Amino acid sequence: MTRETDVKKWVYLFHEGDASMRDTLGGKGAGLAEMTKVGLPVPPGFTISTDACNEYYRAGKSFPSGLWDQVLQSLRWVEEQAGKKFGDPSNPLLVSVRSGAKFSMPGMMDTVLNLGLNEKTLQGLARLTSNERFAHDAYRRFIQMFGKIVLGIDADNFEHILDQVKEEQGARLDTDLAAADLREVVQRFLRLAKEETGKDFPQDPQEQLRQAIQSVFESWNNKRAIDYRNFHKISHTLGTAVSVQTMVFGNMGDDSGSGVAFTRDPATGEKQLYGEFLTNAQGEDVVAGTRTPRYIAQLKQEMPEIYAELADIAVKLEQHYRDAQDLEFTVERGRLYMLQTRAAKRTAASAVKMAVDMAREGLIAKPEALQRVEPAQIEQLLMPRFDPRGKDAAVAGGRLLAKGLNASPGAATGKAVFDADKAQALGKAGEPVILVRPETNPDDVHGMLVAKGILTSRGGATSHAAVVARGLGKPCVAGCESIQVDMAARRFNANGRVVQELEQISIDGTTGEVFAGLIPTIEPSFHDQPDIIQLLEWANETKRLGVWANADYPKDAAKAVEFGAEGIGLCRTEHMFFEEERLPIVQKMILAAPEARRLEEELDAIRREAEAAPAERKEEARSRLSQARERVNAIPAVRDFHEALDVLLGYQTEDFKGIFRVMGCRPVVIRLIDPPLHEFLPRHEDLIVEVTEIRCKDGDSALLQEKQGLLRAVERMREQNPMLGTRGCRLGLMYPAINEMQVRAILGAAIELKKEGLDVRPEIMIPLVGHVNEIRLVREQLERVARQVEEESGEKVPYKFGTMMEIPRACLVAGDIARYTEFFSFGTNDLTQTTYGISRDDAEAGFLLSYVERGILPANPFQILDREGVGKLMDLAVKSGRSAKPDLKIGICGEHGGEPSSIEFCHSLGLNYVSCSPFRVPVARLAAAQAALGTAERDK
Amino acid sequence: MTRETDVKKWVYLFHEGDASMRDTLGGKGAGLAEMTKVGLPVPPGFTISTDACNEYYRAGKSFPSGLWDQVLQSLRWVEEQAGKKFGDPSNPLLVSVRSGAKFSMPGMMDTVLNLGLNEKTLQGLARLTSNERFAHDAYRRFIQMFGKIVLGIDADNFEHILDQVKEEQGARLDTDLAAADLREVVQRFLRLAKEETGKDFPQDPQEQLRQAIQSVFESWNNKRAIDYRNFHKISHTLGTAVSVQTMVFGNMGDDSGSGVAFTRDPATGEKQLYGEFLTNAQGEDVVAGTRTPRYIAQLKQEMPEIYAELADIAVKLEQHYRDAQDLEFTVERGRLYMLQTRAAKRTAASAVKMAVDMAREGLIAKPEALQRVEPAQIEQLLMPRFDPRGKDAAVAGGRLLAKGLNASPGAATGKAVFDADKAQALGKAGEPVILVRPETNPDDVHGMLVAKGILTSRGGATSHAAVVARGLGKPCVAGCESIQVDMAARRFNANGRVVQELEQISIDGTTGEVFAGLIPTIEPSFHDQPDIIQLLEWANETKRLGVWANADYPKDAAKAVEFGAEGIGLCRTEHMFFEEERLPIVQKMILAAPEARRLEEELDAIRREAEAAPAERKEEARSRLSQARERVNAIPAVRDFHEALDVLLGYQTEDFKGIFRVMGCRPVVIRLIDPPLHEFLPRHEDLIVEVTEIRCKDGDSALLQEKQGLLRAVERMREQNPMLGTRGCRLGLMYPAINEMQVRAILGAAIELKKEGLDVRPEIMIPLVGHVNEIRLVREQLERVARQVEEESGEKVPYKFGTMMEIPRACLVAGDIARYTEFFSFGTNDLTQTTYGISRDDAEAGFLLSYVERGILPANPFQILDREGVGKLMDLAVKSGRSAKPDLKIGICGEHGGEPSSIEFCHSLGLNYVSCSPFRVPVARLAAAQAALGTAERDK
Repeated sequence: MTRETDVKKWVYLFHEGDASMRDTLGGKGAGLAEMTKVGLPVPPGFTISTDACNEYYRAGKSFPSGLWDQVLQSLRWVEEQAGKKFGDPSNPLLVSVRSGAKFSMPGMMDTVLNLGLNEKTLQGLARLTSNERFAHDAYRRFIQMFGKIVLGIDADNFEHILDQVKEEQGARLDTDLAAADLREVVQRFLRLAKEETGKDFPQDPQEQLRQAIQSVFESWNNKRAIDYRNFHKISHTLGTAVSVQTMVFGNMGDDSGSGVAFTRDPATGEKQLYGEFLTNAQGEDVVAGTRTPRYIAQLKQEMPEIYAELADIAVKLEQHYRDAQDLEFTVERGRLYMLQTRAAKRTAASAVKMAVDMAREGLIAKPEALQRVEPAQIEQLLMPRFDPRGKDAAVAGGRLLAKGLNASPGAATGKAVFDADKAQALGKAGEPVILVRPETNPDDVHGMLVAKGILTSRGGATSHAAVVARGLGKPCVAGCESIQVDMAARRFNANGRVVQELEQISIDGTTGEVFAGLIPTIEPSFHDQPDIIQLLEWANETKRLGVWANADYPKDAAKAVEFGAEGIGLCRTEHMFFEEERLPIVQKMILAAPEARRLEEELDAIRREAEAAPAERKEEARSRLSQARERVNAIPAVRDFHEALDVLLGYQTEDFKGIFRVMGCRPVVIRLIDPPLHEFLPRHEDLIVEVTEIRCKDGDSALLQEKQGLLRAVERMREQNPMLGTRGCRLGLMYPAINEMQVRAILGAAIELKKEGLDVRPEIMIPLVGHVNEIRLVREQLERVARQVEEESGEKVPYKFGTMMEIPRACLVAGDIARYTEFFSFGTNDLTQTTYGISRDDAEAGFLLSYVERGILPANPFQILDREGVGKLMDLAVKSGRSAKPDLKIGICGEHGGEPSSIEFCHSLGLNYVSCSPFRVPVARLAAAQAALGTAERDK
Repeated sequence: MTRETDVKKWVYLFHEGDASMRDTLGGKGAGLAEMTKVGLPVPPGFTISTDACNEYYRAGKSFPSGLWDQVLQSLRWVEEQAGKKFGDPSNPLLVSVRSGAKFSMPGMMDTVLNLGLNEKTLQGLARLTSNERFAHDAYRRFIQMFGKIVLGIDADNFEHILDQVKEEQGARLDTDLAAADLREVVQRFLRLAKEETGKDFPQDPQEQLRQAIQSVFESWNNKRAIDYRNFHKISHTLGTAVSVQTMVFGNMGDDSGSGVAFTRDPATGEKQLYGEFLTNAQGEDVVAGTRTPRYIAQLKQEMPEIYAELADIAVKLEQHYRDAQDLEFTVERGRLYMLQTRAAKRTAASAVKMAVDMAREGLIAKPEALQRVEPAQIEQLLMPRFDPRGKDAAVAGGRLLAKGLNASPGAATGKAVFDADKAQALGKAGEPVILVRPETNPDDVHGMLVAKGILTSRGGATSHAAVVARGLGKPCVAGCESIQVDMAARRFNANGRVVQELEQISIDGTTGEVFAGLIPTIEPSFHDQPDIIQLLEWANETKRLGVWANADYPKDAAKAVEFGAEGIGLCRTEHMFFEEERLPIVQKMILAAPEARRLEEELDAIRREAEAAPAERKEEARSRLSQARERVNAIPAVRDFHEALDVLLGYQTEDFKGIFRVMGCRPVVIRLIDPPLHEFLPRHEDLIVEVTEIRCKDGDSALLQEKQGLLRAVERMREQNPMLGTRGCRLGLMYPAINEMQVRAILGAAIELKKEGLDVRPEIMIPLVGHVNEIRLVREQLERVARQVEEESGEKVPYKFGTMMEIPRACLVAGDIARYTEFFSFGTNDLTQTTYGISRDDAEAGFLLSYVERGILPANPFQILDREGVGKLMDLAVKSGRSAKPDLKIGICGEHGGEPSSIEFCHSLGLNYVSCSPFRVPVARLAAAQAALGTAERDK
């Protein structure tokens, strides 16, 4: 039961509130209250609560009972504090009226300043300030603001009148107008208001205030505000507060002024007062750019006491809020007033420095320091970027050619080259090159490896080019559709401007921009950024997830270790197959594989027969078998197949030795060959063109035959949907010899290093498992090889077997699969493709980006892990995997492993580690720490 | 507590057991016991229990305590019954010893007959039968069987001796040997046994019996038996029983004989005693084929009393077992003995007739009748098949050309034609044709529609050809790799035999055989098979699942209704797009679509701007919009796009009217366009060849330009993995106009028919939904159209919206999706592809068949639904879908909907209906009834 006399408190004087009351007072109101509370010089005022706004709507847009009384009462208190009286012509109190919701909604509603002015108080103000022009200008501004915001009159009408009067007076600037001119402006403004509203402009200050408060309430539900909240997912039921504050004027002469200050340098993070001020100016003049503000340090000379007071306040506020603050102040006739304080926006570099410094100073704890930096800021600090002056010059010089997708961040500059071979040749010769292609495919990787950056005209943010570039930490602009690459003429055309091969270009993968000519770049080094190193050390103390890296080559592994990787979570062996000198051998193996396989199967049948033969026929059966084996081994395809495998065995053993040597005793997860074999063969389309051309031109018939043979081989192997084809463990079950060679190379390398005294930890990962029998059989197959290798060498190395979890079915039967594995590693790229039924390569060039743009999908699921779908499968897999094998190690090696929100999800699932590209290891370390802190907070 | 004196009962006299004791007595023992129990003339005997066998193993291969005593005791009882004595030279009892497990394991162990013979009892037998030759032959046979089975002597050795003696005596057949010769054979057999075993052949009948029992026990664990049980998933712990039975002889003169009889004709099911017999012969002579047995009817003349007795017994046994029986009998000197009874094997036709007849006779209940027929038998009865004589003649005449995969059952004969256009032309002219292609694709469907059968040289059991053929109920032999199709020369080569276009060929899709020339076929009609109709009526009374059909054309729908379909579960609208006259219009639409889409989006932006414009600028914004619309509509791509859609709207309206008219008030689920648009365009490879050829030959430059344009368009649209590309609802979200046209056609057709007085029930199905927003937006989009159509026509038709569940993610978020749908339909073809990460088209030509052959997968998951993986997702979807919307209707329209074990699973999940190709509707009805009965049984 509420009695009528129990009126709710709707209005809070500044000293009645504090920083914790954002819900009730809004962000601005709470800040003013807090400053007042700690005794800073804040012009007196009060805040009408958000509850009042909500009640206003509930009551059908009328002030809740008691509100107006409380406003008037609070106003009286303010009058006392200010020593002025609202509407008193002799000593008028003027106020500002501002909206302020819990969450900042910039631009939702403007401010009304100078409220309380009318024909009479205007005179008082002129008298008190001895400045008639100032008073008229203040009045003119008030009518203009009130007219637009409260009365809803089109702002253009006011500007039009102002322009008219200036023209009539021959004035160029507003400041050229004299008091009398402004008087004329005011008269015309008042007439306009009457014409537009049919009523006189309100002269009663209380009426002005009532209408202004109502306008602020109404602004909560204007279209702009609703759209803004919908977009930012802010609740519509929060309501806005209204702050009413005594006006102070920085434009009352040379003992007045306005300024903004940061308690630390927002660009560098250095601990010193930073900011700008103007004497004899109002706040908006500082930011408007009509006069050039001066550095805050000069205030020390001009107003030493004010400076000292401000510096003191800055320290107090930073201590109080335990974070760098962004302050607004006004000096009115030698007296300092604080108008706003809020957390300072900052650059990536300053964010890191401030966080580390403050933790060292003891201002904040280490966990807070970790939460003060965005993982993306770490990434940004480690990417090469253009020298800003160089870039500005390029833009000014008209050298910006086009803009594509910002597919992999960082800046690069070099000669445009149109094919991978040429890129490799020039790159190896030390020339910086940018590889420019319509799109890239695995054949181009050798060129991408040496290029400084990659530019494609087709393909989305997860196209081959984009993914590989991110993996390599190289800048990439993808899907730059406004350039046409003419491969035949070896040039590209960007909106009419032609760039020939070997001309210099520059690309910014952070923004997607493409420039003609060279722009100097700055390459930051991890070691030169001790604050990052410090912060990430704290991250290591906090995080629970291991952070591993995806690395295929020793130099990537070394980079990963430098960045703090604790292991390799994915070493893709097939990338090694694409290297120039090896590809012909790989192709020889692949072309011979089907025939070799058929013959091996025949041999197997004979072997089984021999085993099953009764004792008296054993001898005969064995001799039949050995004859057959001899015959089969003499067949060219079989010889080719095994010869090629032997050569590859040598190469791969060296590959793995290289990685193991870098990683030492850290675990190295090596994935067995994964892509469909036809990816290693020439492209089908190219062969068709070649064959057709030779045929049409009656060319060399031997060549025709050779090419036709190759074409047929490619046709036999190519697939409608290679993504879902003969790849992953399916290859190993169809061509066991390839898997066996790889395991032999892995364990052989490990044993060689063991003999050198290194203690290496290979973990063998079997891709694309969907049925428990697959992992069981491959494991049996490979353990046989492992035993052979151990017998041959007389050495044992510890090794583990695990599987990629990258097919929905694997997640659904994870308990069964766990029985045959020591670890799971979620391949969330493919798992997302199959769970969503989306081919990444196609979708990003097709419907997917449109889906994301139109909000059909909340995000690109290849960038941010889809918790609802893919995540549910992961959760199922983790639970049933661990219930079958409690000590099962579980990680993730998809691209999501380097993305902060996905890392948070992996943490919440209880994974053991995330693995990402070396360049994202620092990001992942911070994100993992933040995830751990988030969990800790939730657990509180 | 078991006292030592409480010896377990190991041995059961025949009259102590019954049919229910298969666990203990094995199948054979239980049958003999049952016949004895009901008073039939069974030679006396006893059965040693399976428990004894198991205990034998537990005790380290020694007889359990009490067993031998019980055997001897039982033997004495048998002696009394038989009036003969075991080992008594004057009146010897001879016995057979046979194994018999709970489940029949044919060939696991042979029988030992005539046990009890030795040098002395042999004389007795000779005397008693007055037939010395008979006695010696019996002894010879006994030694031979015992030697092989119990003593483990290689059977060849005995045969060798027999051959030697025959040679020495100049005898050609065994029967040419006289008593003295057989005496000689016996002597040599006994010597052989001593040489091989080092011991004399056991002369003591009890010792013979002991060893024979032990041998039967041991046979349970021989390799053959273990392999058999592993393969058939029979437990190894069941053990075998041993039946010991008095010998009777059918070869004791013309008043003796042996035979087999069926209580009903196993070929036709007719109710009459059916079988064969031989006088003066033993059981094996009847089946050996050395003498031609006579029809059982003749027994009536020769031994009228015996016949009457047998006929009487047959009726009794059928009544007793409530099923047709397969009997073995022997007549010894005018006396009838029954040796075996078991359920009779039967043909598909007889299975149906027997089941229906027996139910009508009241012998069995309707549910039992339903369980007596295999669904596959129904299928078999409804398929066209070759006239057996015609096929035999073709094989004999050497016309069998090759054998491929039996991809779609049935037989077809016609002219070989090598492309779809020609097939269509000839087919429409009334010529029966067989379409022969290396493989088929959607471009070939118009040819497949008119062909009698399809033959491909590539592709697996779920290749395009196979799937479409099964859908159409047409015979198909796929992946027939031993034929080479030469498209240029228009002929194929089958192992050297060349078949030119238009030559007659015949294919058998049930066996995979391909023949040269014509073989007459028999086309069974559903209406001519009243027993099937009756059985399926009973099925309808029993089943809980609805059985619907997948049908795209009115004539398929009519077929489906004839077969008893209760609705259309999947009408694929895109098949209609492939028709010859429509394809150019479809292509025109597709080529214009991207440009039209881009322009529509621009218009949308202008429209949104106009909507947001302030009041005073509304007018202006609207006129800008209408100008823009005019401009856009004048652009050729936009005009083409809408013109093509208008034409298609007309076609599709007629399509749907056709289907609705056939289906009447039954529900018709129409799926909106699903395949990626590039499937309707010319093949990429073909265009490359064309363009290259024109270029090389400096051909017509206008043509070159046109083709290059087309090639570029195809290249823009083609996808790496079209299965996971821009298809399904993604198309409708990218090109709403296509979906809108289809919905307009569906509802327009429904309204037209409503005006004719028909009450139609369209259900609109949205394919490939993965995220709730997709279904929400498409539904909104289409409901807008529905409202427009209703407003335009002033009529309302009831319609439903639903979604295909064919992506794992849809199943994982089914609860959300259910909120926007009235029904789910599992598309298990695609759901299997994505859950398993297997592209069906590729896998069946690649690793999948090898996986199934090698047992890596238990079955082809595209044929038999994978309960463990796909089924788990379905289960999740059903549960969360129904919990969000309890009345959600759920069906399945993947191929699994016509496969009995998958239907059983769908029943157990609680689906509302299965939908399958029209030709499988009868199969599905029976399978659904059996599923319901199975559940009822489990619930008992």
